[in-house]
Amino acid sequence: MSGIDDLHGMGDSRGRASTQGPVLVVGTGLLGTSLALALTAAGVEVQLSDTSPTSLALARDMGAGRPRQDGDPQPRIVVVATPPDVAAAVVLRALEEHPSAVVTDVASVKNRVAAEVRAHAGSGVSRYVGSHPMAGRERSGAVAADSDLFAGRPWVIVGEGADPDAELAIRNLAVDAGATPVRMGAAEHDQAVAAVSHMPQLVSSLVAARLEGLGEPALSLAGQGLRDVTRIAASDARLWSAIVVGNAGPVAELLRELREDLDALLAGIEPAALDPDSPEYAASGRAETIAPGAVGAITDVMIRGHAGQARIPGKHGGAPRRYAEVQVLVPDSAGQLGRLFGDIGQAGVSVEDFALEHSAGQSAGIAMVSVLPAAAQGLEEALDAKGWRVVGS
Amino acid sequence: MSGIDDLHGMGDSRGRASTQGPVLVVGTGLLGTSLALALTAAGVEVQLSDTSPTSLALARDMGAGRPRQDGDPQPRIVVVATPPDVAAAVVLRALEEHPSAVVTDVASVKNRVAAEVRAHAGSGVSRYVGSHPMAGRERSGAVAADSDLFAGRPWVIVGEGADPDAELAIRNLAVDAGATPVRMGAAEHDQAVAAVSHMPQLVSSLVAARLEGLGEPALSLAGQGLRDVTRIAASDARLWSAIVVGNAGPVAELLRELREDLDALLAGIEPAALDPDSPEYAASGRAETIAPGAVGAITDVMIRGHAGQARIPGKHGGAPRRYAEVQVLVPDSAGQLGRLFGDIGQAGVSVEDFALEHSAGQSAGIAMVSVLPAAAQGLEEALDAKGWRVVGS
Repeated sequence: MSGIDDLHGMGDSRGRASTQGPVLVVGTGLLGTSLALALTAAGVEVQLSDTSPTSLALARDMGAGRPRQDGDPQPRIVVVATPPDVAAAVVLRALEEHPSAVVTDVASVKNRVAAEVRAHAGSGVSRYVGSHPMAGRERSGAVAADSDLFAGRPWVIVGEGADPDAELAIRNLAVDAGATPVRMGAAEHDQAVAAVSHMPQLVSSLVAARLEGLGEPALSLAGQGLRDVTRIAASDARLWSAIVVGNAGPVAELLRELREDLDALLAGIEPAALDPDSPEYAASGRAETIAPGAVGAITDVMIRGHAGQARIPGKHGGAPRRYAEVQVLVPDSAGQLGRLFGDIGQAGVSVEDFALEHSAGQSAGIAMVSVLPAAAQGLEEALDAKGWRVVGS
Repeated sequence: MSGIDDLHGMGDSRGRASTQGPVLVVGTGLLGTSLALALTAAGVEVQLSDTSPTSLALARDMGAGRPRQDGDPQPRIVVVATPPDVAAAVVLRALEEHPSAVVTDVASVKNRVAAEVRAHAGSGVSRYVGSHPMAGRERSGAVAADSDLFAGRPWVIVGEGADPDAELAIRNLAVDAGATPVRMGAAEHDQAVAAVSHMPQLVSSLVAARLEGLGEPALSLAGQGLRDVTRIAASDARLWSAIVVGNAGPVAELLRELREDLDALLAGIEPAALDPDSPEYAASGRAETIAPGAVGAITDVMIRGHAGQARIPGKHGGAPRRYAEVQVLVPDSAGQLGRLFGDIGQAGVSVEDFALEHSAGQSAGIAMVSVLPAAAQGLEEALDAKGWRVVGS
């Protein structure tokens, strides 16, 4: 599928940046420092600024650029990488202080920031372009930064009201950071991220909150499903509060829709929860209609969930690509995965995707190895011959 | 950490089963066939039964045992592995038809099955023991069966009202299948699985259902968080309908609690969603109280989500074990993972856990390699020297 050269091929664009500096990055958290590192690596001159001297020094020491000082040349681009609740104010100040610069922000919400900028920027609004690089991680701060954070990720560009040259400058910036520019309107963006990011974040937290008072024996039964549903519940509370407040309209609308579905589900299953000897049970309808009604309510949610889940694009974008999954028992995953991949390599098979599934109290894991369908049977036979236990069919 | 011998060490118990046959397995779906395969491999005589001749023949051809026929010796244990909505009726029939056998079922709900058995089994109730092996997969049917399905997983045993010898027989059966027996009351079990499995399943479906009508551009922004939250939304609708109806009380209670939290969250963020020029905004309180109120509501949900999520046991059970995570950019994950694991192996480092993170439209992935903290720095240096791009710090 791909050679080892691809590893080095990733760096092809370095030193051939379209962006002409200097670029001033305001805010040296995870996103700002990562972007500064990527631009510096691409040969762009980067100036840094942050209200925290500690964070600023850390970003400088990581090689992200140098702190902007009085007398430095005016930046051609200013990137505002502050928390979303202060982004608009910092954008407005940047438009004023750097009257020839194109200014962008990387906040996860775009409509509110753009509205505030439009309301107060005057003619400067034509130099403002909204951005949202779809990159991040559960850790935050400059210390978690990486020049490859944006590699291959979508970077939403909101150019409404901006000069075409200004928009082009930010497109080039996104490409120089390794991202893929995607043009969207501010409202369209905010509704999209409410659905694919903000609402799922809050619901994951709501599910995880139910575990707070659960006993140890109950928790010991937790499996991979619960882990997956609640993984993002570990995300940063302060950042997410600012994001959701900044996108309250679209998020509230989705949560209300979800609550309507939840109410219908509850109305369906609550009669089935009643004691069959209780007067409420008798009053809730003929007994023989209760179970089918509950099944109908549950099935409705499940079927619509299938339809929605199937629409999520696969790893290469577009429609989900169908790989064959070879499942292999890894007796104690520690130390055995290297041997497994060695044996897969000897079989001459490319691994398209990989996941390891565990349960509580379990030292063994199931390695789920995705390969092209034509390669699956041969791989299963090769692994079987090497003594691996291939699971299922 | 562990040698290659561990792979073969898994089979140590084979041929030394505590269970004395014959064991009759009623229902040759995923769980029944997997159990039959495990018991057959352990040297136990297994009889099979299923209402579907096709499924029965498939299980037989897979080597799970042979179909029970008239004149066969009476089973000492009957395992009812039917869908949960018919489990109680099949248990009652088994207690009657096999008057000296211990009878268990593997349904995901225990209280309803036990109540029905108690109500109709007479003295036979002392031969009934409830079971719930915490094993499964997204695929179903005999064709997905595997003798290692239960390896290292918890197997809940509900012995209320049962003869101690009957309970011991089912404990032995669980151990012979490779599982870890966990004793629980029926109500305790049902509340536990409502929280760690049934409620999260339904909420995952509710989130995924929101994606049904979403546009392609919005879906293209989906990341790993959405994939994780909605992965189990692909689960079988018929099976889950039966499970939830059978555990309607505890599930409804948790969903009501979740709805209360959702209502509080919505009440907090809806004012922030109002147009600041609208009369509703003015009526909703002084403007400067709206954003802090919304932040408070969101922060509350997030903080409680943190607390709940942190309580989920790690892969080895008990408190989460802390590994250091080394993150490596894998330029095109196809074909490169083998080389990565080869280089990790050459560095002499054991991999404790592994995950691969992708985004839409992205050919590169981030490999998250969990190792013992003492090994992390050496591994990062070794991989760096091999030309890998180690991400973050």
